[in-house]
Amino acid sequence: MGRGIGASSGIAIGRAYVLPVLEWDFPDKMVDVTDLALELEKLHNSIRFSKGELEAIKQDISELIGEEESHIFNAHLAILEDPIFITEVRSIMQRQYKAAEVAVKETIDKFVNMFDLLDDDYMKERAADIKDVGNRLLKHLLGNFQDASPPLEEPYVLVAKELTPSQLANVNPSEVLGIVTFMGGMTSHAVIMARAMGIPFVVGMEGKIERPIQTGDFLIVDGDDGVVLINPEPALIEEYRNRHVNQVARREMLQEIVEVPPVTRDGRRLVLKANINSLKELEQALKNGVSSVGLFRTEFIFMDRSVMPSEEEQMELYKQAAEKLNGNSLDIRALDIGGDKMVSYLPLPAEENPSMGYRSIRILLDRKDLFHTQLRAVLRASLHGNIRLLFPMISSLDEVWKAKEALEEAKRELEKEGVPYNKEIPIGIMIEIPAAVAIADLLAREVDFFSIGTNDLVQYVLAVDRMNESVAHLYDPFHPAVLRMLQMTVEAAKRHGIPVSVCGEMAGDQRAIPLWLGLGIEEISMSVQSILPVKDRLLKSDGGESASLLSRALNCRTSEEIRQLFQFNSCETD
Amino acid sequence: MGRGIGASSGIAIGRAYVLPVLEWDFPDKMVDVTDLALELEKLHNSIRFSKGELEAIKQDISELIGEEESHIFNAHLAILEDPIFITEVRSIMQRQYKAAEVAVKETIDKFVNMFDLLDDDYMKERAADIKDVGNRLLKHLLGNFQDASPPLEEPYVLVAKELTPSQLANVNPSEVLGIVTFMGGMTSHAVIMARAMGIPFVVGMEGKIERPIQTGDFLIVDGDDGVVLINPEPALIEEYRNRHVNQVARREMLQEIVEVPPVTRDGRRLVLKANINSLKELEQALKNGVSSVGLFRTEFIFMDRSVMPSEEEQMELYKQAAEKLNGNSLDIRALDIGGDKMVSYLPLPAEENPSMGYRSIRILLDRKDLFHTQLRAVLRASLHGNIRLLFPMISSLDEVWKAKEALEEAKRELEKEGVPYNKEIPIGIMIEIPAAVAIADLLAREVDFFSIGTNDLVQYVLAVDRMNESVAHLYDPFHPAVLRMLQMTVEAAKRHGIPVSVCGEMAGDQRAIPLWLGLGIEEISMSVQSILPVKDRLLKSDGGESASLLSRALNCRTSEEIRQLFQFNSCETD
Repeated sequence: MGRGIGASSGIAIGRAYVLPVLEWDFPDKMVDVTDLALELEKLHNSIRFSKGELEAIKQDISELIGEEESHIFNAHLAILEDPIFITEVRSIMQRQYKAAEVAVKETIDKFVNMFDLLDDDYMKERAADIKDVGNRLLKHLLGNFQDASPPLEEPYVLVAKELTPSQLANVNPSEVLGIVTFMGGMTSHAVIMARAMGIPFVVGMEGKIERPIQTGDFLIVDGDDGVVLINPEPALIEEYRNRHVNQVARREMLQEIVEVPPVTRDGRRLVLKANINSLKELEQALKNGVSSVGLFRTEFIFMDRSVMPSEEEQMELYKQAAEKLNGNSLDIRALDIGGDKMVSYLPLPAEENPSMGYRSIRILLDRKDLFHTQLRAVLRASLHGNIRLLFPMISSLDEVWKAKEALEEAKRELEKEGVPYNKEIPIGIMIEIPAAVAIADLLAREVDFFSIGTNDLVQYVLAVDRMNESVAHLYDPFHPAVLRMLQMTVEAAKRHGIPVSVCGEMAGDQRAIPLWLGLGIEEISMSVQSILPVKDRLLKSDGGESASLLSRALNCRTSEEIRQLFQFNSCETD
Repeated sequence: MGRGIGASSGIAIGRAYVLPVLEWDFPDKMVDVTDLALELEKLHNSIRFSKGELEAIKQDISELIGEEESHIFNAHLAILEDPIFITEVRSIMQRQYKAAEVAVKETIDKFVNMFDLLDDDYMKERAADIKDVGNRLLKHLLGNFQDASPPLEEPYVLVAKELTPSQLANVNPSEVLGIVTFMGGMTSHAVIMARAMGIPFVVGMEGKIERPIQTGDFLIVDGDDGVVLINPEPALIEEYRNRHVNQVARREMLQEIVEVPPVTRDGRRLVLKANINSLKELEQALKNGVSSVGLFRTEFIFMDRSVMPSEEEQMELYKQAAEKLNGNSLDIRALDIGGDKMVSYLPLPAEENPSMGYRSIRILLDRKDLFHTQLRAVLRASLHGNIRLLFPMISSLDEVWKAKEALEEAKRELEKEGVPYNKEIPIGIMIEIPAAVAIADLLAREVDFFSIGTNDLVQYVLAVDRMNESVAHLYDPFHPAVLRMLQMTVEAAKRHGIPVSVCGEMAGDQRAIPLWLGLGIEEISMSVQSILPVKDRLLKSDGGESASLLSRALNCRTSEEIRQLFQFNSCETD
């Protein structure tokens, strides 16, 4: 047995297929000066073919797991269009008369080595991308080289040293029970894809098992605990099979509560809303029994395209979303780019600490073109349903005033043009910066509702980057400081009579339900896959106990005490 | 007239000397196979000479402006030892039989172009370093190439497109009245050096003036406002000469209050302490009339060396510092590395958001070797003066408990060894993370004093990286949220009867004095150059007014209102 890191949830039981490591071995071929043009043609064909393949994979991935995840392949396409890369390959060919495959191989090796030496995770990931793209080019240049296919007739557990997104895109997902890799972290592209495909995945097994896994070994992979068992005892297999059966049964059970209203045993209601990135996710949310959207992240409409979406295009999308909700509320968050979310037609400078940098409302207030177009689109769509507008990353009254003034300007313009819109469109702000908590009483006078973004709030309150594995153990939504900040926000909102919802990942954490009930929060918004598990827990909760639990929690000194108070372990159902 | 960015304070008046742009122009020389060994020898000699020069410059800079600033040249030395760089040069020579200077030039151009294309400020700075080192190598390889020296007989204003640290190190600082550059930002190495040398500096003039500056032009450079005047009217020259005279007079006037006690007009005392990085700075602090150190940043003892300083070495340094203070307090902050402060023998992974990453106490609690050695050294030194120990980056009680347990362990060990130390050494924590403010009441029960680190606190509270120019305008120590956080901290400390001091840059801001008096803070600690200006303002302040001012400030809605309340503009004296 070995314990790595559980990167994608679920249990897989089956035989291993170990992906062979790609080793290139070909002669250092030269070409005649007269053949150089032909050889360059060959190079450019292989680039063209590779691009076509990558576009096709991107399309497949997009259909399989959603457009957002398919962005992974943009980095690969970018390398094929990178002038440095191409120039380097061409110059080796033209100056040293080497064959295309030799030049490609030399260039890849060189950049990979250079980037690897830089001791920078970002650069190492770039190195992996270059290697992946290079292998694709070499396959085309060397002819009919094919990936070895699994020798097994049955679905299998894929085992690899590292797994590139290309390799994962190459396998038939319905045949892959689970994945184990020796290298790689929680945030690798392959992990993101596997999670979206619902395939259990354990990473980081390097040095964690006694002997190498071989094709044909019988494996149990537990993507929740990060456990990998090799050729286990029958009793263990039996145990995991039962767990697996229970998981499947639970999934079916959850389907039965789709239509059940979200109330506690003693009748307290907690509205469950969905966080969505696209119309496709909205449909999934509706299938999970949700009737409102607490967070429509509009940045995904802006990403992965070469020009900004027009007012018309945005309006159409917001309108369709609003109509699908049949009069229930749709909270549209203004464009939240920057930090780790980039759009190609709005190049932003690289930043030392992007999370505390030029992003979100800070960009919108500077970039009237972006903001104004979106505001007009939202206003126009507001006639077709119950749309509310959310401003992200607010840290001061100045920002609220400026954002509201921009909205007024858009309204005046539409008025002048005779274009109808909802004049009473409700305005909310994200509470996700500690400063906003500290001045929540001042902010509450200016807007119609608050939405607490716990992901960012927790990271700023604790000064912990949640994506950074070295400090991930310090990212703690149940830290006493976070509870107090939540309480301060709710108090201020209540004093000024405006509602508060919560829309970070914490809202999708079942253990937090007593917290929301205790705080008197009436709405929480979460990713689609959390909705049914959260509802299941809510149905079993007691609203009456929550208030006293909360006041005791606010006196706890550590998150450990808070966790014990809420009896996380004893009332855990899955 | 043009307005750039004032990067180093002060006024300079004099004639311009425009640094010529270095253009290399030499033939693409080849060498015979038989001469290759000789040519490689030439390359390695030039590397050796360049290293020697850089070591000498580093030494000079260290003596001139302090050891910390001389670290700038380590990046250059590192390039001369970088295997990729050297391998690339050698391979061009050995594979293409090119002369050393040709290979060096090609390698520099290639890396500079590559890094420039990466659109990453860090990489661009690396590119500048490589260019600078490359020029140095080329000078040696091409023989007696000398920097053109200024054609002027008198001190001059140095004007350059960009200025490298090497170029600045090459000039005689007593001849340079001021500096103007067209490129470059507030944080370039040359700016840091100029600031340490007290030379006024305006950067970022590109596109800000009508015509190019020429050698011999008469210039006025105002490093406070970022203004550069070219051949101005006599009346303007007169005006700036007066300002300059006033600046000098003020500097002399401040010398007169060195021995004056730090009390307001109505007799309220505010203890002024020094932030120091080294014994040298401690001496300067003593010359400025300070008797205690509120922040000894120990990280500079650990930086710029290849092995960790031993317990003995640290103990000796802490002891010397304590003794110089004659029984007044010395607050030693435990090693605060990570983020932007790195040490070579403790390689840390590159991080996406280093400010919210693996740093400071987070590293110390993992790295017993570092922490334990430092704790033993501090304890042993504690016998020789009034040493207090400060733990940085505290965000939870757990961290305080763990740090105190580590201290107890060091105490037990010394006890067992029969080594004497101060058993009652006071323990404080930095309040610099919003979570620490939110649980200040809990933390106050565990320690003897608080020290508020406003630099980090402001940046986390506002989610603004203070080093990032794109959002620098949002970094606002007078934001209402910051005032409330300060107030919360002081309240909690008072309730539990422990003192609070402030040690960020805000403590060195004269405008904040009424704030400290109003909050009831009794000690502030600042960089040495702020001490006299702050004391001067303090002597003119009224302690009685401060309390009512503060309570009004706490009701302000914006920092603009707060600034007006404190009448920043009207009571500004410099």
